[in-house]
Amino acid sequence: MAKPTPLSGFPELLPAARTVEREVIASLSRTFELHGFANIETRVVEPLDRLAKGGEIDKEIYLVRRLQAEDSADTADATAPDRQLGLHFDLTVPFARYVLENAGHLEFPFRRYQIQPAWRGERPQEGRFRQFTQADIDIVGKDDLPFHHDVEVMRVMVQALGDLPLPRLSFQLNNRKLIQGFYRGLGIPDVTSAIRQIDKLDKLPSETVADLLVENAGATAEQAGRCLELATIRISDHSLVERVQALGVSDELLNRGLAELASVIEGCADAVAATNGRVSVEANLRIARGLDYYTGTVVEIFMEGYERLKSVGGGGRYDALADDGRTTYPGVGISFGISRTLVPLISDGVLTGSRPVPSAVLVALADEVSRPESEHVAEALRGRGIACEVAPSPQKYGRQIRYAERRGIPFVWFPAGATHDSDQVKDIRSGDQVDADAATWSPPDADLRPGIVVSATDETSSTDERQKQ
Amino acid sequence: MAKPTPLSGFPELLPAARTVEREVIASLSRTFELHGFANIETRVVEPLDRLAKGGEIDKEIYLVRRLQAEDSADTADATAPDRQLGLHFDLTVPFARYVLENAGHLEFPFRRYQIQPAWRGERPQEGRFRQFTQADIDIVGKDDLPFHHDVEVMRVMVQALGDLPLPRLSFQLNNRKLIQGFYRGLGIPDVTSAIRQIDKLDKLPSETVADLLVENAGATAEQAGRCLELATIRISDHSLVERVQALGVSDELLNRGLAELASVIEGCADAVAATNGRVSVEANLRIARGLDYYTGTVVEIFMEGYERLKSVGGGGRYDALADDGRTTYPGVGISFGISRTLVPLISDGVLTGSRPVPSAVLVALADEVSRPESEHVAEALRGRGIACEVAPSPQKYGRQIRYAERRGIPFVWFPAGATHDSDQVKDIRSGDQVDADAATWSPPDADLRPGIVVSATDETSSTDERQKQ
Repeated sequence: MAKPTPLSGFPELLPAARTVEREVIASLSRTFELHGFANIETRVVEPLDRLAKGGEIDKEIYLVRRLQAEDSADTADATAPDRQLGLHFDLTVPFARYVLENAGHLEFPFRRYQIQPAWRGERPQEGRFRQFTQADIDIVGKDDLPFHHDVEVMRVMVQALGDLPLPRLSFQLNNRKLIQGFYRGLGIPDVTSAIRQIDKLDKLPSETVADLLVENAGATAEQAGRCLELATIRISDHSLVERVQALGVSDELLNRGLAELASVIEGCADAVAATNGRVSVEANLRIARGLDYYTGTVVEIFMEGYERLKSVGGGGRYDALADDGRTTYPGVGISFGISRTLVPLISDGVLTGSRPVPSAVLVALADEVSRPESEHVAEALRGRGIACEVAPSPQKYGRQIRYAERRGIPFVWFPAGATHDSDQVKDIRSGDQVDADAATWSPPDADLRPGIVVSATDETSSTDERQKQ
Repeated sequence: MAKPTPLSGFPELLPAARTVEREVIASLSRTFELHGFANIETRVVEPLDRLAKGGEIDKEIYLVRRLQAEDSADTADATAPDRQLGLHFDLTVPFARYVLENAGHLEFPFRRYQIQPAWRGERPQEGRFRQFTQADIDIVGKDDLPFHHDVEVMRVMVQALGDLPLPRLSFQLNNRKLIQGFYRGLGIPDVTSAIRQIDKLDKLPSETVADLLVENAGATAEQAGRCLELATIRISDHSLVERVQALGVSDELLNRGLAELASVIEGCADAVAATNGRVSVEANLRIARGLDYYTGTVVEIFMEGYERLKSVGGGGRYDALADDGRTTYPGVGISFGISRTLVPLISDGVLTGSRPVPSAVLVALADEVSRPESEHVAEALRGRGIACEVAPSPQKYGRQIRYAERRGIPFVWFPAGATHDSDQVKDIRSGDQVDADAATWSPPDADLRPGIVVSATDETSSTDERQKQ
């Protein structure tokens, strides 16, 4: 078997880096659960007809079929040969299906979080992978879902991300009712198309977008100008409502959207303050999110210094997440791109794991015969929640210490024996060695479990006074 | 969108059942980490040429390719069009590839655990799924790996599974050296084929297996009889060595295998004792594990009352887990089938989650205007690690209590207001309602987080005195 090479677009982490990802997932899960979100996991495949909707994403879908069935019309599921299967490309499609399938067993509003990989066959580049892990939270109602859940979901994600050691994050909010009402109030013929054109502002110059508004949405040049004017508004304080009203467009839907947007920003204020500058929230009226299913609040999340990744998360309100013909399930949710965020931060050295192994202690081994004594010490430590391993072979103690050093294990334990009467433990970083009892000794809290180490680079970038590079 | 129907072989759990799975995964992870096993996660796809080895499993492999590329020779990975991709069918193949790919960045012996789904396109039946989650631990050395790691891996899995609220588990051990040596000592011409025939004893009557030994392994009828005699030995105490030696076959490899097997059983004794009867370990000399890569210790795990599932876990020693032409990586590991075990126990009602939501408390809502006060209480509780949610709408308190009841939330919190001067909390199971302060009140430990509830059925089946049904 030759040495294998990595597969482009399918990043894998070494053990220390995986520690970073696990700590992030644990922290997110804790926050989501504190707010009553239940975890679910869906199968990775969906029937192709649920995945492919004729949109851009279709051509990125991965089909799944049994090798055996490759040359026949038969597909992955032998019990339903007419249904082709594909890997899900996000967690929203499978969640919507899960809600419909299990509606009779769920209590609504149903709040769930889901942290799983998804797959897209796009061209791999920084932060864009073919397999990537996402963390999604959604609240879904039956028939209706009060607006205050829009505020709630946003607050929860602000708190969850504010707890992570990431570069500063910016939540940029808008509201589809606001945009639609504004366009309608302006008298633009094709409001839906107009939204789609405005959504291209992050890729195209504004003059081009203006032309597209005229060409595709039937706007006059003057109307296109007003649309672009709206799209330039970025505000994080109370002047939002005033600024929009100053544009002189009057529409009932616009007013509702504006009030909702102001409420979400206002409702997040204390949660934002609690993040000590890690997270900011502002209205950015050019955020549209092209997807047709959004109907109110929309949000995209950007990471300071990593604007080139585009958004690292996003979401919003959809009045029909799912619909089985009898019942409609409205929802509001946000997705955070774990791989998109962490893989670049890890490869830039901004985040690393404090060590590649869980072990806080290596129990040294005097000779092979005394392995049971060393195991006994290890078991006593484990019984008190201290991860440890026994040295694999009875080398000279100096070599056992170097073995611990290479693995990043901070402490080496020497069972009582020839050289000393009682057990001793050495902090191999300082060299300090003290008598110790496995029934009572504990490492400092910071050494108990591996954690995330944030490099100075990141500290710099989160300090206002410094220049950005 | 019509109501979707489940996909056969792709089980999904409702939120309460998912709690069971999450608690099991958390408990296993904790034990593995206490023993110094680092977690890794591999991508779900492997190049087809690494997966397909011409064996039985080949026809169960799921191929993955981009929808766009469906009709051309192009496959999932556009950068390497000659490499077809498949979903991994276990965690051993991807782990071996990960070790080879990253050997320069790993410290050996490398101990890792991995808990992920795998996929096999086999016919779905109880405990056999097309997508299923496994928990694997392995220790891998570079060039060599001392035997004591065989004992270690077995002890760790005994401890890990002994902590779970499962029906009684039986570890049934054997050693490939013992079998091979015995057959060689007997003078059987084709030892490898003989092992493969003996492995069929769980499906075929022993007379048929005897015939197969004669037919395929070149054994005489007398030799076949001795092979079967060896295969009937099941012993959990010190008489093992004696019993095997009494068969009168003498072979150096047999002796080594016998000594190893006795050491593993002996080495697990205290770990087994600590499980209070939840786990037993015994030699069962008909366990062969058909896979060719095992070279020493082999184990299969069975669950009492669920023998129809066949083994719920297994593993062993392989002297060449991976090999890149220059270096060989021997390993020893065990895999535990999380889906295979839990899905049947959950659908039989043996295990359930104590509630489908993380929330321990529902904070009631007097009216929509006082939502901030209720949120304030909720935040105070969350700050102290108590999961809670605020009632979605200001219904009458009786209806809010019933709302909590339907969700399985044990406590309802009433902020101070019209009906009472101070905050109060009600245990909705007992009806007890007391004054409470969100800065100090805590639920009983048992109510803090959802947990696993074991039904009486299981208690019965783990009690020796009762008859099995």
